[in-house]
Amino acid sequence: MEFSSKLLEKAVGEVSQLPGIGKRTALRLVLHLLRQPKEQTQGLTTALSAMRNDLKFCKSCHNLSDVDICEICSSVLRDKEIICVVEDIRDVMAIENTASHKGIYHVLGGKISPMDGVGPHDLNIVTLVEKVKAGHVKELIFALSSTMEGDTTNFYIFKQIQGLEVKTSTIARGISVGDELEYADEITLGRSILNRIPFEASLKQ
Amino acid sequence: MEFSSKLLEKAVGEVSQLPGIGKRTALRLVLHLLRQPKEQTQGLTTALSAMRNDLKFCKSCHNLSDVDICEICSSVLRDKEIICVVEDIRDVMAIENTASHKGIYHVLGGKISPMDGVGPHDLNIVTLVEKVKAGHVKELIFALSSTMEGDTTNFYIFKQIQGLEVKTSTIARGISVGDELEYADEITLGRSILNRIPFEASLKQ
Ligand SMILES: [Zn+2]
Ligand SMILES: [Zn+2]
Repeated sequence: MEFSSKLLEKAVGEVSQLPGIGKRTALRLVLHLLRQPKEQTQGLTTALSAMRNDLKFCKSCHNLSDVDICEICSSVLRDKEIICVVEDIRDVMAIENTASHKGIYHVLGGKISPMDGVGPHDLNIVTLVEKVKAGHVKELIFALSSTMEGDTTNFYIFKQIQGLEVKTSTIARGISVGDELEYADEITLGRSILNRIPFEASLKQ
Repeated sequence: MEFSSKLLEKAVGEVSQLPGIGKRTALRLVLHLLRQPKEQTQGLTTALSAMRNDLKFCKSCHNLSDVDICEICSSVLRDKEIICVVEDIRDVMAIENTASHKGIYHVLGGKISPMDGVGPHDLNIVTLVEKVKAGHVKELIFALSSTMEGDTTNFYIFKQIQGLEVKTSTIARGISVGDELEYADEITLGRSILNRIPFEASLKQ
């Protein structure tokens, strides 16, 4: 691509570093900003900077938060003894949309995947096991994607807490095997939480 | 969508104002930035701000430029007497990629489209006619999309300069009728410039 302006070239170059955005799309987006009032670009850049510099992870559940302990963890309306274990924060958002879970969450930050070089210690598993060991957890709901990696991760955690007094369940497989959780429709996802089954029973299926 | 962070919600809101970017894609992009070093977000926001605040339009051809007169207009290697008339700056980039045009450009900033409320006075037509009247132009190459609006715009300019001593040509219609210029492949586009025909001849086709 031939650019008549280094400023334009630099902007397109930076935008096209975003995943799934090619040079042509980046140019289209940048030219769009150029046609809009300067305030729009300023709003965008200010919001992105603030997000990147000030966003925190909840010290308890590892969800994204503006404060040390997130709104869900600090809400008196949530049952702290029921913890829903998810891969990432998009899954928290998806489940919150269904309004079917009255407990709290624990965000692992991924799933065990030897192929991608992700082991148990790359995930927030230790803090979860500690919570269970502390004895304040009645139930762990595994809400990971029903893929091989999701199953491996469930099973790894299950082994870590074996013998401890905690109920484990897994969300009902209304979601097709292999599907990503975040793309499930609200009704299916909500129902699969309500119909969760004991984790050990899921191993026999 | 339920957000656990106002900072995240604001960032996603701003990104999803870009054309063709939905909330879900915006979230994906923002979470990507969050996983990358802070420097990437800083590079992106700095480049966008600089682009939006400092980018100029060339005072002669209306192309985007970092300086008052763009590199093409000020180059001693370009023939100032041959002006290629295009809709927007993406067309300049597309034609520059073909390296087939040795003259300069004139960017109209759109095409006449009564349906979209775009009249001749919304476009950079007056400055083009003035250039021709000043007598320094040997040839105008119309390189607009071959759509009804493109044809209308060509014809409007043609009428404005009728009687003046200037050759007019239109790029060869190797590009399918109705296609946008910027999506043409380089070879087709380059060839259509080299095979341009007198504008009056194109009216009879
Ligand atoms: Zn939390
Ligand atoms: Zn110029």
